Amino acid sequence: MTLKDIAESINARIRGDTEIEITGASGIDEAGEGEITYVAEKRLIDKIFSTGASAIILSEDLLKEAQSRGQIRQGILIVRNPKLAFARVLEILYLSPYQPKGISNRAYIGQNVTLGRDITISAFAYIEDDAVIGDRVVISPYVYIGKGTVIENDTYIYPHVTVREGVKIGKRVIIHPGAVIGSDGFGFVSDEGRHHKIPQVGGVIIEDDVEIGSNVSIDRATTGNTIIGKGTKIDNLVQIGHNVKIGKNCIIVAQVGIGGSAQLGDGVIVAGQVGIRDHIKIGNRVMIGAQAGVGSDVPDGQTLLGSPAIDHKKWLRAHGIFTRLPEILKKINEIERKIQKED
Amino acid sequence: MTLKDIAESINARIRGDTEIEITGASGIDEAGEGEITYVAEKRLIDKIFSTGASAIILSEDLLKEAQSRGQIRQGILIVRNPKLAFARVLEILYLSPYQPKGISNRAYIGQNVTLGRDITISAFAYIEDDAVIGDRVVISPYVYIGKGTVIENDTYIYPHVTVREGVKIGKRVIIHPGAVIGSDGFGFVSDEGRHHKIPQVGGVIIEDDVEIGSNVSIDRATTGNTIIGKGTKIDNLVQIGHNVKIGKNCIIVAQVGIGGSAQLGDGVIVAGQVGIRDHIKIGNRVMIGAQAGVGSDVPDGQTLLGSPAIDHKKWLRAHGIFTRLPEILKKINEIERKIQKED
Amino acid sequence: MTLKDIAESINARIRGDTEIEITGASGIDEAGEGEITYVAEKRLIDKIFSTGASAIILSEDLLKEAQSRGQIRQGILIVRNPKLAFARVLEILYLSPYQPKGISNRAYIGQNVTLGRDITISAFAYIEDDAVIGDRVVISPYVYIGKGTVIENDTYIYPHVTVREGVKIGKRVIIHPGAVIGSDGFGFVSDEGRHHKIPQVGGVIIEDDVEIGSNVSIDRATTGNTIIGKGTKIDNLVQIGHNVKIGKNCIIVAQVGIGGSAQLGDGVIVAGQVGIRDHIKIGNRVMIGAQAGVGSDVPDGQTLLGSPAIDHKKWLRAHGIFTRLPEILKKINEIERKIQKED
Repeated sequence: MTLKDIAESINARIRGDTEIEITGASGIDEAGEGEITYVAEKRLIDKIFSTGASAIILSEDLLKEAQSRGQIRQGILIVRNPKLAFARVLEILYLSPYQPKGISNRAYIGQNVTLGRDITISAFAYIEDDAVIGDRVVISPYVYIGKGTVIENDTYIYPHVTVREGVKIGKRVIIHPGAVIGSDGFGFVSDEGRHHKIPQVGGVIIEDDVEIGSNVSIDRATTGNTIIGKGTKIDNLVQIGHNVKIGKNCIIVAQVGIGGSAQLGDGVIVAGQVGIRDHIKIGNRVMIGAQAGVGSDVPDGQTLLGSPAIDHKKWLRAHGIFTRLPEILKKINEIERKIQKED
Repeated sequence: MTLKDIAESINARIRGDTEIEITGASGIDEAGEGEITYVAEKRLIDKIFSTGASAIILSEDLLKEAQSRGQIRQGILIVRNPKLAFARVLEILYLSPYQPKGISNRAYIGQNVTLGRDITISAFAYIEDDAVIGDRVVISPYVYIGKGTVIENDTYIYPHVTVREGVKIGKRVIIHPGAVIGSDGFGFVSDEGRHHKIPQVGGVIIEDDVEIGSNVSIDRATTGNTIIGKGTKIDNLVQIGHNVKIGKNCIIVAQVGIGGSAQLGDGVIVAGQVGIRDHIKIGNRVMIGAQAGVGSDVPDGQTLLGSPAIDHKKWLRAHGIFTRLPEILKKINEIERKIQKED
Repeated sequence: MTLKDIAESINARIRGDTEIEITGASGIDEAGEGEITYVAEKRLIDKIFSTGASAIILSEDLLKEAQSRGQIRQGILIVRNPKLAFARVLEILYLSPYQPKGISNRAYIGQNVTLGRDITISAFAYIEDDAVIGDRVVISPYVYIGKGTVIENDTYIYPHVTVREGVKIGKRVIIHPGAVIGSDGFGFVSDEGRHHKIPQVGGVIIEDDVEIGSNVSIDRATTGNTIIGKGTKIDNLVQIGHNVKIGKNCIIVAQVGIGGSAQLGDGVIVAGQVGIRDHIKIGNRVMIGAQAGVGSDVPDGQTLLGSPAIDHKKWLRAHGIFTRLPEILKKINEIERKIQKED
């Protein structure tokens, strides 16, 4: 592909040699001859003058700033959001359009299963009775779809995913290997020192455009549904307890644990290894720093740190002093000595 | 089912309309017409007057308290432990009795395997030589049972579970999808900067009535056995190292990590994301708060918080001051100024 | 086997009864009649006089120390590194030499797959087109090998492992059940409140002699490669983000999370549940204590603790004062009262 072809595909304006052949795409530090890269932050502009890339995606503003600093010898594509454009270029250069492979005769398909058009059901897939599989859905090897579970159009399920019975999965959902959707919630009632299982008879609803990482566990509800809102992205090894409700367009980073019946609003960002207590309510656009432990309700728009988590500025101030405690204690002891001497 | 039928099944006394048709069960906030719910805590009693439920399970005490607050219009079941009774009702209303499905001809079954009565072995199950499968055991699709492993009566193994060779699993055990039982312990000996594997030739014993969550990892012992005691319940994504010994009726919440050769007594409760150091000994009925890190032995009956974990009251007092450190430092600086001025 | 046979196999000098029959090996506390054990630490020497073991592996130094404390009645093997020798003895006594089982006709093997000599490909294995499988490789049931992926000689892959397309796995690598290699990195670009996927078109390189625990997630690179260096050992449930580069002979304990593009040097030791921020650089031979959170670059040779992690001595001092904060605050208040009184 020439740079001009790419410019047309992503609707970019073009500067410099429009006929350069583009054979790959890379980050600005690794990109070489024939490759296209991007700059999305002002602090990286000077890399334009050292990168081996043959073409660079920039915003109008960043281009101006770069031009003020030196001569740009690469082909340039000008777009509103360079990182978004780069994502689109990776798609164009590397991803092949979806080709349905049909239904393997080494898959197990139960009674009364509804199958959409142009689907892929691989060898060693297992689809229980009454399941519904939408159009262009990909069911990879070793995917288990439980009884009556519904998978909507254009959803891609990687190998070794378990989706138990009575789960609803929306459109364009991506589920990575080893994820488990709809396992029993961790519900017991203790009586005379023994723990008796509370049957987990609810379901799970995964809305459209959700992405679920590898080895994630999402439990079904005791009654009702565990819900993951539209456009939310979940990283690897995350634990989501029974009856959790997550809003739209949230980002849940790896190894986060969300306790049963917790609720998250829309646009919430949860960094890695955070723990969220069961039954609490977290507002919209809340940001929670890595390894924090959230133990109580959080209003909209807060940024939290620490375990138990508090306002991030407050925590940073307190923690800054924590590391200085030895010198502070020394100071206190000196004051004490002085006073005792004066007495 | 009528309310009377349910009362008989769970051995409850009944008040109000005994002939109400019960079609479902839900939590008190979600329950509607035809549904049964329960109240097990005094602070939730007022919900009896607003819930849409047609019937409520209560204890004698809670019923009296409720009657003193207003007129109860629903059918009432009176029991000793309302939550336990509700669990039983969910079972009656939603779970079908076990129906053995026999042995799929698409399963792989090795030489000299012992198979009990009324079992279910699904397509794509894999059972190695010399394994022993008890009566009414369910082996779901993609379950791997290693050589010589023993699974006792009434145990249910969900899809994608790996149970390696030489493991013993007791009666009525439930293992959720993606759990791995008997993988090699993490044992190496370092010599001249390189790490040499210590063969892990021990086994794992899972006692009766244990439940193991999805994507849990339980390592086999180096020599001897890793042991999970009777009635212990393990949530999702928990790590249990080699040679760990866990007592009876413990509760291990999601994402906990227990280091090699650690020992837990009976009735221990470990909240989410806790880390327990290798080779330490934790007494009976110890409670460990979320995200704590336990670094040394703990006597019976302690409640711990923090990382490293200490007595929870001590930790709460110290942490309460942590968040006030900026104002405390200000105070110290003022005192210092005052004293220097006086000098 | 006699003790003499074992001495010859591991190249040890021998003392005492050379003809004792050795039937097993155990830790010093559990070892009984006919078993061999080892002592590698001075503080455990007195156990030599109470253990039930029939033979003990010792270093020259430890033997001398033991002899100075009492009469040793067991057979003794003298080696440079007793723990390493014990590992070797476990191998000799318990592990059978590898026996290739050939290619099951119940495996799925795609087009143009290259298969080495003496391999084992089990029932329900799935190998995509263009994959390359080296000599003596073991592919267990339910192992998925993606398109074009290369597995080099003597690598052992346990059940339920997913290795996606375009991954390179070296020689003598061990991958435990449920591990996922090459799943998509967690890369999104947010635009007007929605998160757009950045295609993850890079790969993963696992170098020789790496061991990967059960239910581990290792993401593929956005572009370029995620790299795990030669001889590095990774415990269970570890998360490794896209474009991470880990050096040689590192030890990564269970439930650690390493953020995207982070770099670790050689010989780094990361204890359980540690979090490492994305894009940071950690030097050679760094040690990071359990549950620490590393937020910025770390020079060679440092030992860190805490979240955010700092020098471990500094952290221990600060934390020692943290637990004494209530008494310190009391002291400050007393000082304040005194001063106010004096005013």
